[in-house]
Amino acid sequence: MHCKQGAGFPPCPALHDNRRITTGLPPPTMPTLSRLTDPMFGSPAVLEVFSDTGTVRRMLDAEAALARAEAQCGVIPATAAAVITEVCGRVDVIDLEALAQAAVSAGNLAIPFVKQLTAAVTQRDADAGRYVHWGATSQDIIDTALVLQLRDALREIVVDLLRAGDACATLAATHRATPMVARTWLQHALPTTFGCKAGGWLDALRRDLTRLDHVGAQVRVIQFGGAAGTLASLGDDAPAVAARFAAELQLDVPALPWHAHRDRLVEVATALGMLTGTLGKMARDVSLMMQTEVGEVAEPSGPGRGGSSTMPHKRNPVGCAAVLTAATRVPPLVATMLAGMTQEHERALGGWQAEWDTLPQIVTLAAGALRQMADVASGLEVDEARMRANLDITHGLILGEATMLELGRRIGRLQAHHLVEQASRRAAAEDTTLRIALARTLAEDANHAGLLDDAALDRLSDPAQYAGQSERFTDAAVAAWQALRANPQN
Amino acid sequence: MHCKQGAGFPPCPALHDNRRITTGLPPPTMPTLSRLTDPMFGSPAVLEVFSDTGTVRRMLDAEAALARAEAQCGVIPATAAAVITEVCGRVDVIDLEALAQAAVSAGNLAIPFVKQLTAAVTQRDADAGRYVHWGATSQDIIDTALVLQLRDALREIVVDLLRAGDACATLAATHRATPMVARTWLQHALPTTFGCKAGGWLDALRRDLTRLDHVGAQVRVIQFGGAAGTLASLGDDAPAVAARFAAELQLDVPALPWHAHRDRLVEVATALGMLTGTLGKMARDVSLMMQTEVGEVAEPSGPGRGGSSTMPHKRNPVGCAAVLTAATRVPPLVATMLAGMTQEHERALGGWQAEWDTLPQIVTLAAGALRQMADVASGLEVDEARMRANLDITHGLILGEATMLELGRRIGRLQAHHLVEQASRRAAAEDTTLRIALARTLAEDANHAGLLDDAALDRLSDPAQYAGQSERFTDAAVAAWQALRANPQN
Amino acid sequence: MHCKQGAGFPPCPALHDNRRITTGLPPPTMPTLSRLTDPMFGSPAVLEVFSDTGTVRRMLDAEAALARAEAQCGVIPATAAAVITEVCGRVDVIDLEALAQAAVSAGNLAIPFVKQLTAAVTQRDADAGRYVHWGATSQDIIDTALVLQLRDALREIVVDLLRAGDACATLAATHRATPMVARTWLQHALPTTFGCKAGGWLDALRRDLTRLDHVGAQVRVIQFGGAAGTLASLGDDAPAVAARFAAELQLDVPALPWHAHRDRLVEVATALGMLTGTLGKMARDVSLMMQTEVGEVAEPSGPGRGGSSTMPHKRNPVGCAAVLTAATRVPPLVATMLAGMTQEHERALGGWQAEWDTLPQIVTLAAGALRQMADVASGLEVDEARMRANLDITHGLILGEATMLELGRRIGRLQAHHLVEQASRRAAAEDTTLRIALARTLAEDANHAGLLDDAALDRLSDPAQYAGQSERFTDAAVAAWQALRANPQN
Amino acid sequence: MHCKQGAGFPPCPALHDNRRITTGLPPPTMPTLSRLTDPMFGSPAVLEVFSDTGTVRRMLDAEAALARAEAQCGVIPATAAAVITEVCGRVDVIDLEALAQAAVSAGNLAIPFVKQLTAAVTQRDADAGRYVHWGATSQDIIDTALVLQLRDALREIVVDLLRAGDACATLAATHRATPMVARTWLQHALPTTFGCKAGGWLDALRRDLTRLDHVGAQVRVIQFGGAAGTLASLGDDAPAVAARFAAELQLDVPALPWHAHRDRLVEVATALGMLTGTLGKMARDVSLMMQTEVGEVAEPSGPGRGGSSTMPHKRNPVGCAAVLTAATRVPPLVATMLAGMTQEHERALGGWQAEWDTLPQIVTLAAGALRQMADVASGLEVDEARMRANLDITHGLILGEATMLELGRRIGRLQAHHLVEQASRRAAAEDTTLRIALARTLAEDANHAGLLDDAALDRLSDPAQYAGQSERFTDAAVAAWQALRANPQN
Repeated sequence: MHCKQGAGFPPCPALHDNRRITTGLPPPTMPTLSRLTDPMFGSPAVLEVFSDTGTVRRMLDAEAALARAEAQCGVIPATAAAVITEVCGRVDVIDLEALAQAAVSAGNLAIPFVKQLTAAVTQRDADAGRYVHWGATSQDIIDTALVLQLRDALREIVVDLLRAGDACATLAATHRATPMVARTWLQHALPTTFGCKAGGWLDALRRDLTRLDHVGAQVRVIQFGGAAGTLASLGDDAPAVAARFAAELQLDVPALPWHAHRDRLVEVATALGMLTGTLGKMARDVSLMMQTEVGEVAEPSGPGRGGSSTMPHKRNPVGCAAVLTAATRVPPLVATMLAGMTQEHERALGGWQAEWDTLPQIVTLAAGALRQMADVASGLEVDEARMRANLDITHGLILGEATMLELGRRIGRLQAHHLVEQASRRAAAEDTTLRIALARTLAEDANHAGLLDDAALDRLSDPAQYAGQSERFTDAAVAAWQALRANPQN
Repeated sequence: MHCKQGAGFPPCPALHDNRRITTGLPPPTMPTLSRLTDPMFGSPAVLEVFSDTGTVRRMLDAEAALARAEAQCGVIPATAAAVITEVCGRVDVIDLEALAQAAVSAGNLAIPFVKQLTAAVTQRDADAGRYVHWGATSQDIIDTALVLQLRDALREIVVDLLRAGDACATLAATHRATPMVARTWLQHALPTTFGCKAGGWLDALRRDLTRLDHVGAQVRVIQFGGAAGTLASLGDDAPAVAARFAAELQLDVPALPWHAHRDRLVEVATALGMLTGTLGKMARDVSLMMQTEVGEVAEPSGPGRGGSSTMPHKRNPVGCAAVLTAATRVPPLVATMLAGMTQEHERALGGWQAEWDTLPQIVTLAAGALRQMADVASGLEVDEARMRANLDITHGLILGEATMLELGRRIGRLQAHHLVEQASRRAAAEDTTLRIALARTLAEDANHAGLLDDAALDRLSDPAQYAGQSERFTDAAVAAWQALRANPQN
Repeated sequence: MHCKQGAGFPPCPALHDNRRITTGLPPPTMPTLSRLTDPMFGSPAVLEVFSDTGTVRRMLDAEAALARAEAQCGVIPATAAAVITEVCGRVDVIDLEALAQAAVSAGNLAIPFVKQLTAAVTQRDADAGRYVHWGATSQDIIDTALVLQLRDALREIVVDLLRAGDACATLAATHRATPMVARTWLQHALPTTFGCKAGGWLDALRRDLTRLDHVGAQVRVIQFGGAAGTLASLGDDAPAVAARFAAELQLDVPALPWHAHRDRLVEVATALGMLTGTLGKMARDVSLMMQTEVGEVAEPSGPGRGGSSTMPHKRNPVGCAAVLTAATRVPPLVATMLAGMTQEHERALGGWQAEWDTLPQIVTLAAGALRQMADVASGLEVDEARMRANLDITHGLILGEATMLELGRRIGRLQAHHLVEQASRRAAAEDTTLRIALARTLAEDANHAGLLDDAALDRLSDPAQYAGQSERFTDAAVAAWQALRANPQN
Repeated sequence: MHCKQGAGFPPCPALHDNRRITTGLPPPTMPTLSRLTDPMFGSPAVLEVFSDTGTVRRMLDAEAALARAEAQCGVIPATAAAVITEVCGRVDVIDLEALAQAAVSAGNLAIPFVKQLTAAVTQRDADAGRYVHWGATSQDIIDTALVLQLRDALREIVVDLLRAGDACATLAATHRATPMVARTWLQHALPTTFGCKAGGWLDALRRDLTRLDHVGAQVRVIQFGGAAGTLASLGDDAPAVAARFAAELQLDVPALPWHAHRDRLVEVATALGMLTGTLGKMARDVSLMMQTEVGEVAEPSGPGRGGSSTMPHKRNPVGCAAVLTAATRVPPLVATMLAGMTQEHERALGGWQAEWDTLPQIVTLAAGALRQMADVASGLEVDEARMRANLDITHGLILGEATMLELGRRIGRLQAHHLVEQASRRAAAEDTTLRIALARTLAEDANHAGLLDDAALDRLSDPAQYAGQSERFTDAAVAAWQALRANPQN
C-alpha cells in the first residue's frame, strides 16, 4: 500500500490489499464522464479502471480465467486455455470502435466482444477458437468484469480515503483547542473548536471507510450462470468450473447467480453515495468558512488555482466546487441504481443496461470528490486569528448561556436569566459588549454589586472557556481513527 | 416474536428482539403518507410508529430519559425527574394541532413541544418545570426520538421480512424441480425451475435481512450535543449524563454528536431502498407471470381483491401494483436523503428538515411493500401445468442448445451445430416441434440415421432434463436462509 | 381575484380566474404531508384541495357531472341524474376510513368509492342507483378529480406568486440603485445593486408565472375512456357524453383518453419543480445574506419567529429553511413522476399509482415554499448600510477592474494592468485601501504623478459608480412584470 | 429540412429551421456518455454536438461573435475582430488535453480556453490578442456555447421526432380497425384496435413536439453579464454590444443575464424528460407485445440484430431495451438539473457545475432513445393474426360487457347481468366460449329462448364490433399530427 504518513501517525499496516495499480498500460484512451471534465471530476487511477480499455481488459481477464478454470476441470483442452489466455493478454486484440458499433444491434458489448475474441483466437489456433466463452453468457462476462473494476477502484478509493482521514486527523489534533464559533441555521450559536469540527469530518470518514470495506467484500463474487442462470450447458461440471473460475480471479462464489438481483452493486453505489455526502458536507463547511466576510480557512493555493486575473483579491474554492458538484450529481445516480433493481425475469430490459454508465459515473465522481477533498484538507490554510475575531462579532452575546449558568448557581436560574436578558438588550442598545453591559447592570444594583469580579467576568467573556466537550470529542474521533488504522479488521 | 412456521422449518429462535409493539394506545390518529392511501401503501405497525402520536410519544420518552439521567448524575433534582417522567407518560399532554402551528414560526417541532411540556410540568410542580429539557437542544430530542422510531419500525419490518422469506423458502423447496421457462429480454431462453426463481428472491431477502440487522445496530445511538454540539451547558457532567441518557433508552453513545453528519440515517434509508428494490423485482416477476397470456401464478384471491365487476375474467395483481408503486417512489426519496447530507456547519438549512417527512415515507413504503409481498408470496397460487405448457410454446426450440451439446459429443460440435440449425428452421417451416423436425432430418441422412433413438429424443425434448443447477442453486438458497434463521448472529 | 396591491402598481385585472376557494367546508380533516409538518411546508388553501375530503369532494363532482352529461344525452334518466347530483353534493356520503381500507383489496379508491356512492344513491332512489358511474371506469373519476384539484391548486398558487412577484418588484424598484457586492464562488467580485439581485428573482418568477399559465391550461382536460379507453359501453353516444361531461366541469376534451400517457400531469410537476428551484435560489441568497458575518437582510420578525430563548442574538431564517427544504425534496419527486411515465398498455402497474401521493406532495411543497417566500420577500428587512460596509471589506480591491479600465484609456491597457496589480499588492502589504495604495504608487513615479486627481480617485473608489447596467437590468425586470400583470394574456 | 415522407403525407413544409448539420468536420473525437455505449444510447448528430470538439467549436463561435459585435460598436478595433474571427474558425487552435487539465485548477473550462485562444491570436497579431474575450466572463462563453449546442441538438431531435411521429401515424392509419385486446393491470380487459394504441403514442409525440418547439424558442438567448452580471466593464456600450452579440449568433437578448437563474436550461431538460417518458411508454408496450407468449409485434430484424446464436428462436427487443434504459436514466438526471437551481448569489458552487455533464447526457439519451424508437416504429412488424388470436384467449369473456349491455336493452340490466354472469361461470366450468355457454343458457330457459339469434350471437362474439371509439380516436390523433405538420406555427 502506498501509505501516506499522516500527522505523526505510526506507519500504517497493510489496511487492505490496496496496492496502487501499476500496469505498464498507456494512459486511458477514453473518458468516463467526458474528456473535458474528467480531470476535474475524476481521479486518474479510477478513470483508468473505468476507461474503455480498462473495461475490455477485465472482460479479457474474465474470459481467460474461465478458459483456465474449464481446462482444470477437463471441460476444454489445456492447450485451448493456454492459447485463449495468451490472446486475452493483449487488449489491442479488440477493436474498440467496431465493438461499440456492433453492440447497438447485439444489445450488449459481450456479444461482439466474444466474436472478435473468437476470431483472434481462431486465427492463432482454430481448435482453441471453439472453446472461447464456453458455457458462459454475455452477462457473466460483463458482470464479472465489472466486479473486477469495482474491486480495483475501491482499492484506489481507500488510498485517498486514508489520505483524507489522516489530513482531518491532523487538523483535529492540531486545532483541538482552537476556538471558533459554532453556527446553527447559518447564525452564530456558541463557541466550539475547529478541532471538533474537523473531528466530526474525521469520524464520518471513518464510518465511510468501514462501509467501503464491507461493500467491497460483499461484491467480490463471480457472476456465472450461463444463458438462463442454470449453468445447464456445463452439466455436472458446473460447480467445479464455477469454483475454479472464482479462484482464478480471487473472487468468491455466491449461492446463486445474481444476473437479475443487483443489490450487491447497488450497495456499492449507496456506500459511495454516503461518502460523497460526507465530502459534500466538508466542502460546504470549508466554502462557507472561505467566504470573504468569514475568511477562517482557505483552500491550498497554487499556480492558476482558483485565481482570477481581473479580480486579484479572489481565491475561489475550486476544490470545494468540484466536491459539491459530485454531491449534487451522485444522489440521483444512486436513485437510478435503486430504480434499476426492478428487473424482469432472468435478464432485464432497461434496468440492467441503465447500470452500465451509471455505476462507473458514481464511482468516478466519488473518487474525484475524495481526491479533491483530500487535497483541500491536506493543504488547508487555517486562520486562527480570524476564527478568534469572528467569535467577537456578536460582542459576547454568544456567551449569554455561559453567564446565565454561572449566575444561576449563585442567585437562582430565574433571576440569572432576567439579568442576562437585561444585559444583552443593553449591550445592543449601547453598542457595547455583553461583558461591559453586564458589569454596568450589576454595578447599578446593590444586591448584585459584587457578584462577579473582573476575573470572573474575564473568564465568562472568553469563548475558549465555554467550548464544553469539544476537546474530548475531538480526541475521541482521532483515537477511533487511529484504532481503525492500527487494526483495520475491527 | 410472532414467529410464522414456514414450510416445516424448526421453530425460530428469537432472531432479534422483535417483539410486536403492543401498546395500549388508540390507533394512530394521523397518517404518514395520506389517509386515503396509508392502508394500501403502509403497514399498520409502522404507520403507528410514524404517526403524529408515535412521534410525540418518543419525544416525550427522550425528555423523560434525559431528566432521569440528569437526576442520576446529580444535575437536576430527583423529584423533578420523577415529575417530568410522570408527565411525559401521557401523550395527550401535548396539543398536536397547536404544536404543528407553532412549529411554523419556531422552525422545528421541538421548540413548541418543550414549551408545552414545560407548561404541563410546571402546572404540576413549578420547580420541576425549570428542569425540563435541561442542557439539551431541539435537535437532540428530535433526532433521538427518530432513532427510537427507526428501532421500533425496523423491528416490525424484520417480522414481515421473516414471513416473506419463509414463504419464499417454502415456494423454493416445494418447486425446486418444477420446470418453467427462463426468460431473458422477455423472450423464452432455456428451462429453469420455479424453485430456482423463488430461490433467487429468497437469497436476495436474506441479504436484505443481514443489511437491516447491520443498519439497525449502527443507528441505535443517542443524539446529544446541546446548542452547538459541545454539551457546554452541562460542564463536566456531560459525559456521565450522556452515558446515562443512552442507557435509559437502551441506545449507544457515539464518539461525537452527529447533528450535521447524517450518514447513519441515510444508511437506514439505503438499506430499505435495496429491500424495496428486491420486492419490486419479485412483484415484476409475479405480475409478468400473471399476465393473461402467461398465467403461471396468481396473487391470492379474496373477497373484493383485484376483481372487476364488469370483467369477471380479470384477476388484477393489486399486491404487486402496490409493491411496484413503492419501488418507483422510494429510490428518489433515498436520493433526497443523500442530497440532504450536504449540511451547513453545526445545524443545516434545508438538508436536515428535508429528512423529516422523507425518512418516515421511505420506512413506511418499504414496510408496506414488504407486507404486501409477504402476503402475495404466502398465498401465491402456482399453476405447474401452465408452466409446463408454456415451455412448449416454441415447440422445443429452447432445447436446441441441449440437443447440440448431446450431438456434439457424438459427431463433433460444428456438425452438431449445423444439424440443429437445420432442424430448427425445418420446425418453423413445417410448423412442428424441434423433436419431430430433428427426427426427420436425421432420418433423411444415412450417416445420422441411428444417431439418436426415441429414448434419447424423448430425453432431449424434456425441459426438466435441461434445468442445469437449478435444484442445487435452490437448495443452496434455502439452506442459507435456514442457517441465518437458526443462527441470526452470523 | 384577491389582488394584492403591490408597490403602487395599478390594480391588477383578473389575471386568471383565480378566485379564492371559499367553500363552507370544515377545515381539511387530513394532511397531505404529515399533520405535524403540514403547516410548515404547505399552504392552507392547497392543503385543503389535496386533503382527503378535497379529493373525495372532487370525485363526487366528477360523478355528478357525468350523470348530468349522460342525462342530457338521453343515456340515463334525468331523474337519476338529479338524484345522483344531489347525493354527490354531500361529502359525508362517503365513509373515508372504510374507503381507504377497501382500496387495499380493490387496488384503487374509485372502486369502493363507487360502491359506497351507489349504495347511498340506491338508498334514496333504487332506480337512480343503477346509473351511478355509468360507462365510466375507475381511472376516469380519479384522473378527472385530480385535474380539478390541480386547477384549483394552481389558482391558489398564482395568487401567492403574484404576491411574491409584487414584493420582489417593490424590492427591485426601491433598491434599484442600492449598491451591494456581487459574489461569485462565495467570494466578493464586483459591485452590483440589491435591486438588480431582486430583479433577477423577479424575472425568474415572471417566467414561472408564464409556465404555470401554460401548464394550467393544458392539463384542464377530462379523462374519459371507460374500461379500456374506447368508451365502448356508451356506443354512439360516447362523443356527445364526453363533450357534455367536459362542459359540466368547465374542462376541455382531449383528442384521446390519456390513461396511460401522463405527460400533462408531469408537465405540471416540472413547472412546479422549476418554481421551487427559483424559490430555493431566493432562499439561498437571503439566508447567505442573513449570516451573522454578513447581515445585509433579515427575514421579517414576529413573536416566536426564528428566535432562540438561550441565544437572544439569533434570528434564524426559518422561512428560508422551509423553502430550501422544498427545494431539496421536490426535484426527486419530479423524477418519480417522470419515471412513472413508462406505463404498461392501457393501465399501468406502479407508474400510475406512484403519482397518487407524489403529485399532491409536489404541489403542496411548491405552494408552501411560495407562501413562505412571499412572506419573506414582503417583509424583508434590508440593511443598506451593512451592504455598503461590506463593499469595503476588501479595501477597494473589488474596484481594481474599474481603475484598470480608466487608467487604460489614458496610458494603455498593459501599463494600466501593471499599475493596478502593483497597487493591489501594495494595499495588501501595507494594509490599506486600493485608493491610497494607488495614490502612493502614482505619486512615486513622475510619469504618472498627475494621472488621477482626487476627484477621479474618489469616483473610482465609489462602488456605486461601477454597478454597470444594474439599474437598467432592474428596470427591465420590473417593466416586464408590470406588463404581464397589466396584460396577462401575453 | 431532411423531410421523411411518411405514409403518404404531403411533403412537409419547413417545420422548423431544422437543417441537418453538415459540417466538413471530422467525426466527433470524444464521447458524451462513454465510448463503448455512445452508439447504443446516443444519436450520431447529437453526439457530435456535445463532443469535446463540438463544445469548443461553439465556444470559439461565441468569442468570434463577441469580437465582431464589439467591433461593430466601436469597442474594439475592427482589425482585431477580424483576426479573432479568423483564429476562432479553427477548432484545432485549442489543445483539448491541456484545456481539460488546466480546468482543474481554474475551476472551469473557459479560463484556460481564453488563455489558449489569446495566445493563438497574439501569435498572429499581438494587438488583437489584447481584445480577446473583452468585457466577458467565463460563464458568458460557457453558457452561450451551451445555448448554441442546445439549439443545434434540438434541431436534430425534431428531425427524428417527425420521423417517429410519421411512423406512428402510418401505424395508426393502417391499423385503425385492426382489433387487439386492451390490457389493464397486465390483464385482458376489452377489445381496442392497434391503431388506437399507436394513435395514443402519436398524440403524445405531438405534444412532445409542441413542447420542444416552445423550450427551444425560450432557451435561444445569449448569456452576457461580465464578471458580476452587470456588464460594468463595457460602460455605456453594454446594451449595444449585447444586442449585436445576440444578432451575430441569431439569439435573443434576455431582460437580465441569467448566470444564477437556470430555469431556461432546466425547462429544456424537463421537456426532454417527458419525451423520454413517452418513448419509454412506447418501448414498454412494444416489448410486452413482443413477449414469446404474446407475439403481436416484433422489432425490425437485421443482421446481428437482437439475435442469439445458441437460441435461434429469440428476437431480443434491443431497441426497446435502449429506450427503457434512457427512460430509467433520464428522470434522475432531470432531478439533478432541478436541484442545481438553488444557486449561490451571482455564481454558484456546485449547482452550476453539476449541469456541465448532466444536461448533455439528458439531451444525448433522449436523442438516442428517439432514434431507436423511430427505427422501431418505422420497421415494426405487426402480426394481425396473432392480435386476433389473443383476443380469444379468454374464450370471449372480454365481451361480457358488450353482451350484458345488449341483453340489458331487451330484458333489463339486472336480469342481463345475472344471465351473463351465469354464462361466464358456465364457460369456465365447461371449458368453452362465452358464446356457446350463453347459447346453452338461453336455450335452457323458455323465457330467453329466442332472445339472441345466431347472427346476434355472432356479432356479440366479434371483438371488432366492440372497439367503441377506437377508430374515431385514432383518426383524431392522426388528424392532429397532420395539422401540426402542415402548419407548424399552431
